[in-house]
Amino acid sequence: MKTKQNTHKPEIILTGDRATGPLHLGHYIGSLKQRVALQENHEQTILVADMQGLTDNAYNPKKVSSNILNVVADYLAVGIDPNKTTICLQSQLPALAELTMYYSNLVTISRLERNPTVKSEIQNKGFERSLPAGFLTYPISQAADITGFNATLIPVGDDQLPMIEQTNEIVRKINSLAGRLVLTPCKPLLSAASRLPSTDGKNKMSKSMGNAINLGASEKEISVAVKSMYTDPNHLRVEDPGNLEGNVVFTYLDAFHPDVSYIRQLKQHYQKGGLGDGITKKVLEECLQEMLKPIRERRAEFINDKAQLIDILVNGSQIARDKTEKVLFDVKDIFGLNLF
Amino acid sequence: MKTKQNTHKPEIILTGDRATGPLHLGHYIGSLKQRVALQENHEQTILVADMQGLTDNAYNPKKVSSNILNVVADYLAVGIDPNKTTICLQSQLPALAELTMYYSNLVTISRLERNPTVKSEIQNKGFERSLPAGFLTYPISQAADITGFNATLIPVGDDQLPMIEQTNEIVRKINSLAGRLVLTPCKPLLSAASRLPSTDGKNKMSKSMGNAINLGASEKEISVAVKSMYTDPNHLRVEDPGNLEGNVVFTYLDAFHPDVSYIRQLKQHYQKGGLGDGITKKVLEECLQEMLKPIRERRAEFINDKAQLIDILVNGSQIARDKTEKVLFDVKDIFGLNLF
Repeated sequence: MKTKQNTHKPEIILTGDRATGPLHLGHYIGSLKQRVALQENHEQTILVADMQGLTDNAYNPKKVSSNILNVVADYLAVGIDPNKTTICLQSQLPALAELTMYYSNLVTISRLERNPTVKSEIQNKGFERSLPAGFLTYPISQAADITGFNATLIPVGDDQLPMIEQTNEIVRKINSLAGRLVLTPCKPLLSAASRLPSTDGKNKMSKSMGNAINLGASEKEISVAVKSMYTDPNHLRVEDPGNLEGNVVFTYLDAFHPDVSYIRQLKQHYQKGGLGDGITKKVLEECLQEMLKPIRERRAEFINDKAQLIDILVNGSQIARDKTEKVLFDVKDIFGLNLF
Repeated sequence: MKTKQNTHKPEIILTGDRATGPLHLGHYIGSLKQRVALQENHEQTILVADMQGLTDNAYNPKKVSSNILNVVADYLAVGIDPNKTTICLQSQLPALAELTMYYSNLVTISRLERNPTVKSEIQNKGFERSLPAGFLTYPISQAADITGFNATLIPVGDDQLPMIEQTNEIVRKINSLAGRLVLTPCKPLLSAASRLPSTDGKNKMSKSMGNAINLGASEKEISVAVKSMYTDPNHLRVEDPGNLEGNVVFTYLDAFHPDVSYIRQLKQHYQKGGLGDGITKKVLEECLQEMLKPIRERRAEFINDKAQLIDILVNGSQIARDKTEKVLFDVKDIFGLNLF
């Protein structure tokens, strides 16, 4: 097998989502919007990460299985085009599991325990005393995902940079064992958007917390979510000056409202005093209703045609299987295991 | 898929060897001889564990890859019949890697760290500070091997009992998640033979220590090995009484000499005094030369026909692939992942 040359080639992009819930506005602004743009001139694969979703949901597997098609419908609804982007299902790609096994021998337990992202996730999930092996080792599985597609550019938030580092460590070890360039190192593509806060301004967005606006949210749900949004707790009377910092309504307006100069005016008015939260919330709600209506409608169509969603996953997974099997062949070759 | 019923069925037996060196007399008496007998009336699979061999040899993969066919030749030489026993190669069975991934979410890191076998292996190998993830987690991979074949009876030494325990823990968790019997618990079949000591009476047998007699050992190698065997260090003059305890020559005579009553006489004579180590070694050497000559000759024929060895692995691995994919299907079903 040949080594991959990266010159004069479009970047190979891999992204993915754990299939543990429908996608929300945070996914949209942090990643999905960018993917819709990237698919135009890059080789892009999106992995529906059902197996990774199980690393902390093995005893509640429905949380994963029931969301696989939801996530695919979300992709299509926002404009991911399966003819431009390969959408595939992780559990349909045995080569990724096999690569994970081989890489596991090159990564020490103490290295995994030092991973800052995993460390903080372990704390958040209260896993200290009952940490599943699959959860501690998931950065190895992510390295298998990335290298399995020879991905060169990985759109991430900065909290995911340790994963890129871990992947490139494995890439270097594999290439050093091979004595040649078998795997391609990857670079992070940091999202321009900062992380969208939850509607309550406190926690990480999650469906169970009821503090996220899903892409498929109904008119009513959007309305309720915006009305309950966290603003400036000291902005008690309309005529008082309001504070923008930590004000979720303005963060969302910055993220989603198309008219930047209008929002600038609104902010000045709010800071000066005389602009009530009712008005700013109305502006935001109108903007979100308008943006999410076509997404919701497309999503509903897709979710009603499960056969089509499955078809997309079947086709994408077949393409992905071919790609990942090739990389597996190269890696097994290094270990001398292609006897037949 | 149906649950497996164990009644009125022959036991399903799984054994295997890490492909990290040619097999020796310790393997023969501890396991291979038993497997030759078991293949007559059981459904037996032997797994050449190349992937597990890599868990502590990833930086020296030739140690594994160069020994795969050696191990198969050893099997055939001692009388394992590929028409009665399925001989397959672990790296050819992606379902085992996939099962390992799913099971990894059901086993905690602290549970793995408590495994007494792994604990002592970690110490022996000096892995404390640089323990590869793949090595700590290999009991999960072994559970995948065992359950992947629905094996019910596992021939082991008593040092391997913790592996059976770990496997059955996973079996119980999977069945409890499923709410029905999907995986079959396994039982250990403890070897009647106690562990054969190394020829120096000190260390574990290993090729690199030069203290093992390989099944393919030449006449000369056998002769040298027996002559250098550890006996009774206080048995300085022929007329002195000799000690049987720790006397490797007599342990080997017990293990391999067909004439039990003759060995009993020899022992009495040795203990009384008047029997030199030269004589006992001569008796042992004759016995081993006679036993190993046909094995060596058959082994040489097999090793010269690599195409045949590969053919056996190809056929066995195809049979094994069918079996393990079925189990994988059942396990993925529990997690709701058989969408297509």
